[in-house]
Amino acid sequence: MKRVRTVEWKRDRVVMLDQRLLPNREVYRLYKDPEDVIRAIKELVVRGAPAIGVAAAMGLALGARSLPEDRFAKDFERLCRAFAAARPTAVNLFWAIERMRRLVRENADRSVETIRTMLEREALAIHREDIEANRRLSEYGAALLPDRGSVLTHCNAGGLATGGIGTALGVILAARESGKKLSVFADETRPVLQGARLTAWELRKARVPVTVITDNMAGHFMQRGEISAVVVGTDRTAANGDVANKIGTYTVAVLAARHGIPFYVAAPTSSIDLACPTGAKIPIEERDPTEVSQFNGRPTVPSGVKVANPAFDVTPAELVTAIITENGVAKAPYKKSLARVVKPSNASPERTRIAATPRRGQRAQ
Amino acid sequence: MKRVRTVEWKRDRVVMLDQRLLPNREVYRLYKDPEDVIRAIKELVVRGAPAIGVAAAMGLALGARSLPEDRFAKDFERLCRAFAAARPTAVNLFWAIERMRRLVRENADRSVETIRTMLEREALAIHREDIEANRRLSEYGAALLPDRGSVLTHCNAGGLATGGIGTALGVILAARESGKKLSVFADETRPVLQGARLTAWELRKARVPVTVITDNMAGHFMQRGEISAVVVGTDRTAANGDVANKIGTYTVAVLAARHGIPFYVAAPTSSIDLACPTGAKIPIEERDPTEVSQFNGRPTVPSGVKVANPAFDVTPAELVTAIITENGVAKAPYKKSLARVVKPSNASPERTRIAATPRRGQRAQ
Repeated sequence: MKRVRTVEWKRDRVVMLDQRLLPNREVYRLYKDPEDVIRAIKELVVRGAPAIGVAAAMGLALGARSLPEDRFAKDFERLCRAFAAARPTAVNLFWAIERMRRLVRENADRSVETIRTMLEREALAIHREDIEANRRLSEYGAALLPDRGSVLTHCNAGGLATGGIGTALGVILAARESGKKLSVFADETRPVLQGARLTAWELRKARVPVTVITDNMAGHFMQRGEISAVVVGTDRTAANGDVANKIGTYTVAVLAARHGIPFYVAAPTSSIDLACPTGAKIPIEERDPTEVSQFNGRPTVPSGVKVANPAFDVTPAELVTAIITENGVAKAPYKKSLARVVKPSNASPERTRIAATPRRGQRAQ
Repeated sequence: MKRVRTVEWKRDRVVMLDQRLLPNREVYRLYKDPEDVIRAIKELVVRGAPAIGVAAAMGLALGARSLPEDRFAKDFERLCRAFAAARPTAVNLFWAIERMRRLVRENADRSVETIRTMLEREALAIHREDIEANRRLSEYGAALLPDRGSVLTHCNAGGLATGGIGTALGVILAARESGKKLSVFADETRPVLQGARLTAWELRKARVPVTVITDNMAGHFMQRGEISAVVVGTDRTAANGDVANKIGTYTVAVLAARHGIPFYVAAPTSSIDLACPTGAKIPIEERDPTEVSQFNGRPTVPSGVKVANPAFDVTPAELVTAIITENGVAKAPYKKSLARVVKPSNASPERTRIAATPRRGQRAQ
């Protein structure tokens, strides 16, 4: 199947599909300045944990090109911190930044020009590895899905959320390629409507039958026996198997448990944070209330009324049937199984140190 | 507290606040033709089970005025059927129609002019009784709420959904009047946003602290211990205590049960259908998919993608902590307790016969 061109490195520039305009317009934006890449991450031009990681790596490679040679290491560190402040929850951001930072640190004796080339290669490697991780975890996950039925997904964990074919949607696509007769229920996913706008757009392109529902309908369709399995992505999964993902994921997991429906999380190891012991330690981003209170600039909530907008929630490990990674499927007890599937290099203490830095507009859960 | 003027009888006309335009515009519409009242019910100018009942009664009184004397009974029956076809789930519609129909049947020996006057008085009585039922059930319900904390409500069961001060919101307002320190979380309630648009509008007017959240956030706030109780309304409650209410109510009930949070249903006896044995027999309205796929005429779902739009779901009695009526609070086992609070005259077989007639775009659950 054809990959969506979510984030690309092209002739020393970063190109990204502006996801804010989907499904009505398909606009690709060219980035020359790393500050604009940071803004694009904040404003959801690009979103989805793995795609944010790739975009940050490319943004750092881009920024490195114009940093002065005499204070390269110091300025690069400053740029790393600016990227790390873009969004707090997705651990892939910190993971990708740390890979780039380590490369600069470990090659301090080389010329700046060499380091710049190495950074570019590292960003491309992160992208390539994500494509490969998507492919491999999709095959592991495909085997878990039933031969026929409907799979519910929440938010968008497709090609638009990654460098490759997607995580949750990758699993569904691979299952269909293997001959399983599956259709999809896509939660529209308020407030930003990633399910209605992005998941439906991707699945229509891939000719997968999809029904968009409002988030509050999933329980009704489970009650009617119309949902066979749930597959979602994750922005950060803790060492104990607690899963941070788009707001509403927890509710879907509670409903699935009540109905005895398996609840799968598609998680490339880049989104698993072994240094984070439980979901209670994952910072939950609080976004601009106008995402909830306005639609295309038109108010849907009376002026003066308070609105909350936490962008993520935490699903406790006890509600998770399995976590699907590119290195195999982890099941409870997760502390043991996740440590086994994640490569040791992935659990660097530095990454956690960055991730734990409090930022404005962020609160620890 | 001041009542919202949701539906009024004024100088032989029906006046309704156009709820589709709230919270941005407060427009009152004057109805002279019963067909326009039917359309207003279908198109959600007026919504909420008790308010629909009042509007239908007033619409029938209005229609009776222009029906020819020589075939009054027959034409009135036809008008009753037209009103009954407006919406399938809220039983108050059939209950109000049946009261009006019975009056015509039982007074066939009187002059048409007398019957017209009686119909007008009956419609006003239905309105008055609803105001009184709201007031009484609110006081019963207020005693159940905690002394302080936050109460979650879904959709709008306020003055805008009734003839009076509301059912679920009436309970919250009465609790606050009795000195309880309560704030409210209002689910925005996709797709029509009755929570964001209507509940928030009413609570702001009543100076009750309210936070609007998207429907998929309720679980997150329960997980954080920020919700002390849930109160919702109902469009039809079956004899066994199964509760049909706005889509998403079932999900809230499942979440409340997981968190040990009491889940209360505010139900005037006019919304309890003793002739309906269980929730499985309640018809669930499927509304126009564009309610989900468009916002102010702008698509949020790619064209060609299927959308589902069931307007209600059924919460099984086992998840309901108590049902609050104007005649007292019913608890499990509901078959017994509901029969006790509902007046026998309320369970007429005719009402059920009408409600069970299949209509286009409706499917039994």
